[in-house]
Amino acid sequence: MDRARINELIAHYRHALLDDVIPFWLEHSLDHEFGGYLNCLDRAGAVYNTDKAVWLQARQVWMLSKLYNEVEPRQEWLDAARTGYTFLLAHAFDTDGRMFYSLTRDGRPLRKRRYLFSETFGVIACSEYYRATGEERALQCARDTYRLLIHHYRTPGSLPPKVIPETRVTKALAMPMILLATTQELRLTDSDPLYNEVVEDALYQIRHDFLKRDERALHETVGPHGERLDSPAGRLVNPGHAIEAAWFLLREADARQDTALGDEALDILSWSLDWGWDPIHGGLLSFVDVEGKPPEQLEWDMKMWWPHNEALIAALMAYQRTGDARWAGWFERVHAWAWEHLADPQYGEWFGYLHRDGTVALPVKGSMWKGCFHLPRCLWLCWGMLDAL
Amino acid sequence: MDRARINELIAHYRHALLDDVIPFWLEHSLDHEFGGYLNCLDRAGAVYNTDKAVWLQARQVWMLSKLYNEVEPRQEWLDAARTGYTFLLAHAFDTDGRMFYSLTRDGRPLRKRRYLFSETFGVIACSEYYRATGEERALQCARDTYRLLIHHYRTPGSLPPKVIPETRVTKALAMPMILLATTQELRLTDSDPLYNEVVEDALYQIRHDFLKRDERALHETVGPHGERLDSPAGRLVNPGHAIEAAWFLLREADARQDTALGDEALDILSWSLDWGWDPIHGGLLSFVDVEGKPPEQLEWDMKMWWPHNEALIAALMAYQRTGDARWAGWFERVHAWAWEHLADPQYGEWFGYLHRDGTVALPVKGSMWKGCFHLPRCLWLCWGMLDAL
Repeated sequence: MDRARINELIAHYRHALLDDVIPFWLEHSLDHEFGGYLNCLDRAGAVYNTDKAVWLQARQVWMLSKLYNEVEPRQEWLDAARTGYTFLLAHAFDTDGRMFYSLTRDGRPLRKRRYLFSETFGVIACSEYYRATGEERALQCARDTYRLLIHHYRTPGSLPPKVIPETRVTKALAMPMILLATTQELRLTDSDPLYNEVVEDALYQIRHDFLKRDERALHETVGPHGERLDSPAGRLVNPGHAIEAAWFLLREADARQDTALGDEALDILSWSLDWGWDPIHGGLLSFVDVEGKPPEQLEWDMKMWWPHNEALIAALMAYQRTGDARWAGWFERVHAWAWEHLADPQYGEWFGYLHRDGTVALPVKGSMWKGCFHLPRCLWLCWGMLDAL
Repeated sequence: MDRARINELIAHYRHALLDDVIPFWLEHSLDHEFGGYLNCLDRAGAVYNTDKAVWLQARQVWMLSKLYNEVEPRQEWLDAARTGYTFLLAHAFDTDGRMFYSLTRDGRPLRKRRYLFSETFGVIACSEYYRATGEERALQCARDTYRLLIHHYRTPGSLPPKVIPETRVTKALAMPMILLATTQELRLTDSDPLYNEVVEDALYQIRHDFLKRDERALHETVGPHGERLDSPAGRLVNPGHAIEAAWFLLREADARQDTALGDEALDILSWSLDWGWDPIHGGLLSFVDVEGKPPEQLEWDMKMWWPHNEALIAALMAYQRTGDARWAGWFERVHAWAWEHLADPQYGEWFGYLHRDGTVALPVKGSMWKGCFHLPRCLWLCWGMLDAL
């Protein structure tokens, strides 16, 4: 990448973050009546569902606090983070310390799930909000919630299983991946020998249990000891997930100055881009079966926004690390496809869900799964990496 | 429809049932090692997952028994029904009388769900198998399972709720609809005042709680007393479901000689076809928001096989009842689109999942949700109605 192109990209990512995406969420998502954020926004930003996803409440607190901490201390961002933080503390926690999955607009609990993802996002929200405010209660909440989720994670049977465990036990890439990323965030504010233990375990599982080098694939689901399973779940690669895992690993390799880990992360990135990239229409497929058999997910060939965000981050991180033109090429390929198909120049922000051929399938900017997170995180990280080049 | 066209269609539906679809399932789905049926079949019929869906085991027993009872007593069909029936009785029931949702190939339980659909399909499987064989145990199993599911249905809190009931209670069209159809089947073998009670309640709920005549819509989800909900779930019409409900109601109207019910069913059918039919590419959409807001389902605009099966049955039933050319028109429209896009002349049977534009999204003939049921039921019923015209 030459100087001129880098400058052009810096301007593009900076502008998209500060003048398009964050303003979209500040304008449309803040709930001035009940606090917190309205997540389900149509193309123009109008609310089509007032239920609130706890994942997205927490992720938006994290994102706004992060921008306040890392970009500049704008009061508007901190105020917007505070409304989400206050709403979370008032409504998102059950009496057992676990967090709900979804809430009504006014904060009454709708669903609590057997997964621990609400808690992981709660941890990073509180941790980053503490960095912004110094509020001790936020740090304590991050620590307590982290310890609770690790307890549940390490105690088989403490949460109801989806599949009858006497018949079949599997494990999912999502958990070590999210524990790695959650702990990386929490380490910014706090230290505890537990954090290193969790990261070591996550790295081991990802590298030894989920990564199958002979298949050049980071699998989504394996047996309890990393067994390769002959089923749709066992053959599944989620390219967006695998690419995201790759940059979590690259970040860890940098923190540890671990070249072998960094090289392995680059392999995962390379293989996952190959699995995901659609040779027919471009863009990243959502799910792939490594034997070419039919995946179970009806949406397998849809192009979702977030894998493209992860790919932009990971490709740029790989380029920053290696200077290899191959990674600049991947960044430019994903950049071109994403900004042509996913961005919405008319109303701002990105569409979340496209058909395989790149046409819009669902004209939403926010949903119970898409919020103020993947896209602004990508814009912020890419801007920073481009700046450092 | 003139005589020549009717004869042409009779030949088409008879041939598709007897020479294409049933042979496909007999050839590929029978599990000669463990009994029961392998459901997950790719385009050519090869197995891509050996897990067994209890819904589909039961539905295939019902379908094969039905053909044996209603078309002709072919030993091959009864033998194929028996392997599924035997497998169900040996493996699909938990010790509490409830049925599992999925099993391993050799019959060990994988999942048991909070819904009662496995049980409803278990009832019709046992009931129809009893009609074919006179086996008392099958009838007893149908009766016992029916009573158990009605008990759970009528006892709030007896199954774990999905949404915290102190915050929100909703009800789904699926339950009264499936209870109506299940009871209609069970009445063929058995009589009990309970059956009439259940049907009366189902009719009342569908007509008074789920049907919103001012919106010309049969809703999927309403409040406990039929309240219209302002949420994606509350605005949702599932055209395939609504069309299927219409022909269950038409069948009930015939059984009761109830003209008002029949007229209402025709309204539901007409409105639901209007909601579902895609003006751009043809075919039936999977989910529609009655206010034109974004549905939550990523697959909302996919064209699935089964709504087209329900539409063929319902349109022909409406034509048979009224002689109105409008219904013949709908039958021909759906017929033309479905056989052009969903049928697979190369390997037989129908694809299950198409993109909005009618291209194949997932090249499968069977999955954990698609089995030997909607298509052969449609072919058998249409053949019979055409024959009677």
